[in-house]
Amino acid sequence: MLRIGLLGAGRIGQIHARNVAAHSGASLVAIADVMPQAAATLAEATRSTSMPVEALLASTEMDAVMICTSTDTHADLIERIARTGKAIFCEKPVDLSAKRIASTLRKVDQAGVKLMIGFNRRFDPNFASLKQRLAKGAIGDVEIITILSRDSAPPPIDYVKRSGGLYRDMMVHDLDMARFLLEEDPVEIHAMGSSLVDRRIGEAGDVDTAVVQLRTGSGKLCQISNSRRASYGYDQRIEVHGSKGMLRAANIHETTVEHAGPKGFTTDRIENFFLERYARAYRNELDAFIECVRTGRAPSPSGRDGLKAQLLADAAARSSETGKPVRVELSQG
Amino acid sequence: MLRIGLLGAGRIGQIHARNVAAHSGASLVAIADVMPQAAATLAEATRSTSMPVEALLASTEMDAVMICTSTDTHADLIERIARTGKAIFCEKPVDLSAKRIASTLRKVDQAGVKLMIGFNRRFDPNFASLKQRLAKGAIGDVEIITILSRDSAPPPIDYVKRSGGLYRDMMVHDLDMARFLLEEDPVEIHAMGSSLVDRRIGEAGDVDTAVVQLRTGSGKLCQISNSRRASYGYDQRIEVHGSKGMLRAANIHETTVEHAGPKGFTTDRIENFFLERYARAYRNELDAFIECVRTGRAPSPSGRDGLKAQLLADAAARSSETGKPVRVELSQG
Amino acid sequence: MLRIGLLGAGRIGQIHARNVAAHSGASLVAIADVMPQAAATLAEATRSTSMPVEALLASTEMDAVMICTSTDTHADLIERIARTGKAIFCEKPVDLSAKRIASTLRKVDQAGVKLMIGFNRRFDPNFASLKQRLAKGAIGDVEIITILSRDSAPPPIDYVKRSGGLYRDMMVHDLDMARFLLEEDPVEIHAMGSSLVDRRIGEAGDVDTAVVQLRTGSGKLCQISNSRRASYGYDQRIEVHGSKGMLRAANIHETTVEHAGPKGFTTDRIENFFLERYARAYRNELDAFIECVRTGRAPSPSGRDGLKAQLLADAAARSSETGKPVRVELSQG
Amino acid sequence: MLRIGLLGAGRIGQIHARNVAAHSGASLVAIADVMPQAAATLAEATRSTSMPVEALLASTEMDAVMICTSTDTHADLIERIARTGKAIFCEKPVDLSAKRIASTLRKVDQAGVKLMIGFNRRFDPNFASLKQRLAKGAIGDVEIITILSRDSAPPPIDYVKRSGGLYRDMMVHDLDMARFLLEEDPVEIHAMGSSLVDRRIGEAGDVDTAVVQLRTGSGKLCQISNSRRASYGYDQRIEVHGSKGMLRAANIHETTVEHAGPKGFTTDRIENFFLERYARAYRNELDAFIECVRTGRAPSPSGRDGLKAQLLADAAARSSETGKPVRVELSQG
Repeated sequence: MLRIGLLGAGRIGQIHARNVAAHSGASLVAIADVMPQAAATLAEATRSTSMPVEALLASTEMDAVMICTSTDTHADLIERIARTGKAIFCEKPVDLSAKRIASTLRKVDQAGVKLMIGFNRRFDPNFASLKQRLAKGAIGDVEIITILSRDSAPPPIDYVKRSGGLYRDMMVHDLDMARFLLEEDPVEIHAMGSSLVDRRIGEAGDVDTAVVQLRTGSGKLCQISNSRRASYGYDQRIEVHGSKGMLRAANIHETTVEHAGPKGFTTDRIENFFLERYARAYRNELDAFIECVRTGRAPSPSGRDGLKAQLLADAAARSSETGKPVRVELSQG
Repeated sequence: MLRIGLLGAGRIGQIHARNVAAHSGASLVAIADVMPQAAATLAEATRSTSMPVEALLASTEMDAVMICTSTDTHADLIERIARTGKAIFCEKPVDLSAKRIASTLRKVDQAGVKLMIGFNRRFDPNFASLKQRLAKGAIGDVEIITILSRDSAPPPIDYVKRSGGLYRDMMVHDLDMARFLLEEDPVEIHAMGSSLVDRRIGEAGDVDTAVVQLRTGSGKLCQISNSRRASYGYDQRIEVHGSKGMLRAANIHETTVEHAGPKGFTTDRIENFFLERYARAYRNELDAFIECVRTGRAPSPSGRDGLKAQLLADAAARSSETGKPVRVELSQG
Repeated sequence: MLRIGLLGAGRIGQIHARNVAAHSGASLVAIADVMPQAAATLAEATRSTSMPVEALLASTEMDAVMICTSTDTHADLIERIARTGKAIFCEKPVDLSAKRIASTLRKVDQAGVKLMIGFNRRFDPNFASLKQRLAKGAIGDVEIITILSRDSAPPPIDYVKRSGGLYRDMMVHDLDMARFLLEEDPVEIHAMGSSLVDRRIGEAGDVDTAVVQLRTGSGKLCQISNSRRASYGYDQRIEVHGSKGMLRAANIHETTVEHAGPKGFTTDRIENFFLERYARAYRNELDAFIECVRTGRAPSPSGRDGLKAQLLADAAARSSETGKPVRVELSQG
Repeated sequence: MLRIGLLGAGRIGQIHARNVAAHSGASLVAIADVMPQAAATLAEATRSTSMPVEALLASTEMDAVMICTSTDTHADLIERIARTGKAIFCEKPVDLSAKRIASTLRKVDQAGVKLMIGFNRRFDPNFASLKQRLAKGAIGDVEIITILSRDSAPPPIDYVKRSGGLYRDMMVHDLDMARFLLEEDPVEIHAMGSSLVDRRIGEAGDVDTAVVQLRTGSGKLCQISNSRRASYGYDQRIEVHGSKGMLRAANIHETTVEHAGPKGFTTDRIENFFLERYARAYRNELDAFIECVRTGRAPSPSGRDGLKAQLLADAAARSSETGKPVRVELSQG
């Protein structure tokens, strides 16, 4: 049984806590949160224990810690936990500054601990299956990837303001997915963004609607589009066009029921929220984390994957601001 | 060029006339109708000639005649044309009396002319493709066939009264399709019918909603359901379950456009009327007729197919009336 | 917290045990099985306790008992538990003899305890949603129901021999679903069965391929087809045709991934086994059981629903054997 | 009856000739081609007459001329026909030089004749229906358009060399579609192209795989991707994401037949070639041309639409070559 401590009892912390508690290969030793009551409530629901953050960091009763706190605390917590030799799972992003991420990763390397980053979408059963088929050559060489990613509704404007912007907060997932599927690092990226959904997002200096295209060294191409709003649900689709065919992964509708009537045939909305859509992804992600800690397997997605996605998001944001394509050299990241 | 004369300038006669006129391997020599004006109008539209029925029957300028008149005239016309040695295409059914059909077929045999019956659905590209795959063994041996067939709206009550009833007028198509796909004659049939759509249909002694199940000698099973009303269009589906898999043919939607909104995902109605849905089937049917006349190929569906479908429809009607299953011996038909 | 004891640690018992253990509104007090080791293993996995069957029956530490033992023990266990005043959940069927079921139900009524029967499909989110829409009038009045139900592979021949036959073992689920959706009791049923899948099934006097059609007093029609084999997965579909439209519930594919290549577009198999397909149904079923015990709500599906489904299965089996339609009077059941 | 002459008896000329010949509102007066035999053969097949090009241009027996010759002759022919006062339908593009197009359009304006350009996709029933729904506000304001367009196989390398390149030859259709759906002119475009399909295409200085993104003045975004190869057929899809929902138009499969087996569910390839996919589009396009000549309606797509699409294609080609986004000012085009 892998003994796991969890930092952060918010929305995503609750997901991970319940998954750890229900996992046959792990035990949830303790939960800490800056708001002790939140930690206590979650500990009760998961038959675990709550303790102060410092106590959890100092505890020797754990093999691994999952970091589910706010972004601005990630890098610091990673560095502190790394020093204690524990394995680390950290929600994305490590930091909004790529420089800080790079410095944190060096410390993790020095400490020799394992660090896995929470790009949950890689573990979605549909996307993971698509990736496996790609790897087996089901469509030959990848040529064009199309990623469509739309939230059902924009986040609160206060969240937007401290999010790092659409490219770092939302598109970073798609940029990681692009790398995951291209199996080759992009060398150039061009972004166009608009504020069409919520005027306040534009006034805050961010965009809510954006398109990006990027190219790898060997000429593979990828297009991504993002919107902060989709009236029909949380829209997450991927299509890969290759030399021998095409693979795509569709959304999941709320039910399989179809209604036919005078106005046509209607199926349900798609699942509305990432917690529903990615419920299985979070469980599979935990499996992967536990397995990498228990075995010699390298964590994947790694801290380096986190850094590269952040560098791409930075480049996309810069391209969107300047109107110019941006060259990226991830190998030096 | 096969020289074709056409009897009957009504709805289905117009379809065939235009298809013959446009066909590169046939010429539409003449059109006759009991209403001379109807024949004249259709002749003008198809750059053909109109003439009285008797004149067309006596003409030696044709190789073949297509019979698109009302059902009660079919058997008599077939017999008269057969005596002149011309090939015959006749819309289904040959007659509402199986006995009369059998007697007409004997005369056709004696005359040694070709007779093809207009079971148009066999020529629908989707159903024809399904049949070809079956024949190639795509799903092994047929075990269960499911046929769903629904009109978009009930016919006028006057039509219902002289139609021979739902089993002979509507389900006869599905019973022919069952034979076509089973490749084995049914030996027993059981029907249940109701009048749920239009009270007047029930009052006229007919049903508007019906289910049938039948079995072949080797134990293959088939279910058919019919309704005279479907709010979402003309519904025509087939599914064949076999020892190695399943084949099914779906409906065709008016367009491929899909709308996604707060209430879900909506596609168009399906094509609303048999003339739209089976437009290509009628063209392919004509190809088959022309080819069988020009070559040594036996007409298919043959007069015998027409008789067998009628015998099954008679049996279904009897089962529906008596509440008992009916044994059928088509080999003696 | 509802305190639940569980009898039977086999395949279905394991499902229920895990669901009870994970349920926030219930505690799994004890597990018993005629094979003590099976009970012990399952108790360990669910952090529960194992005890002998007699001990569990005598225990006063439970509010309810779930019966997951072999069919031949159900009626006796229900009667014994009823005498102790506990609520009962029993897997279908109560017994293979409708007479015995009726007598057991009388004893349950006398004891005044709640009895819910495990027709899990009613709790499938897709079928449940279809039912809700029907109830809200989404397609007007029900006219024709089509139920297609196919196992991915036939059960072992030993199981077949003591199963009561396809109609009682497999189609009973579809017959319950028919009643659930028709909201009116069938009055007549006609069945045709064959042995096409496995010769040994036929030799054992059973069928492996069957079709049924039935009619209610008001003339609503329903067709069901069953096969013990489907190469593409566990096939469970429902379609309801009504006066104003159509509702249908489709299968769930293993993933949403689609592959396009020179031979066409391919999606995954459908889920292969009832434990996968109905995983959510079992959880929702448990919710319903817990809620009905805690509140005044009547259990649904009730013991009476179990009896009626059994009477229909008996009638279908008799029709299949005799070749004649069978009238059923469920109100006297 | 609109009297139509046709120039060019090649692949696309044959399509238009047959459609004119079959049209109830038009007559095909004459066909001319630089290869007299080609004109004669097509004239025979369409029951029309062939004549030399100069004779057709001089004829006073026509109301309109359809230009289906090679691209390098279009502008000159338009100018000569315009001087004779006839209405003109010209296949896209008017010329590979935007400057020449602009000069030709001025002459057309001076002559006061109608000129319609053959952007056939606007007349595809699916895309046209999508456009109508957009116009009716079915999804509110357009925010992101995604256009996926893939040929089933690359053209011969000789064709590629004189085609003007992928952007002007292939993507010009998608750029016109973007304008058609955006209802607002793009102001900036960025392109990335690769040669991944056929090395010889790259050696000829062209690309075979390309992505473009563009933005309108009000911030609407559009992504287009093109490939010269798709193993599964001729792939033509459009998706429009708006403030209130999403509209998309899918491909058409060769049949509606689906096969289910141990490896999953397979549907047919999509239609393989533009002549099949756009057969109805060409007929509807002809309807629109005839109607605009007969009525006061302005031709659409107009010569100006042709020019604007060409300017966008030029800009995309320049962006692809330079790696920089290109600003476009279509209002000055």
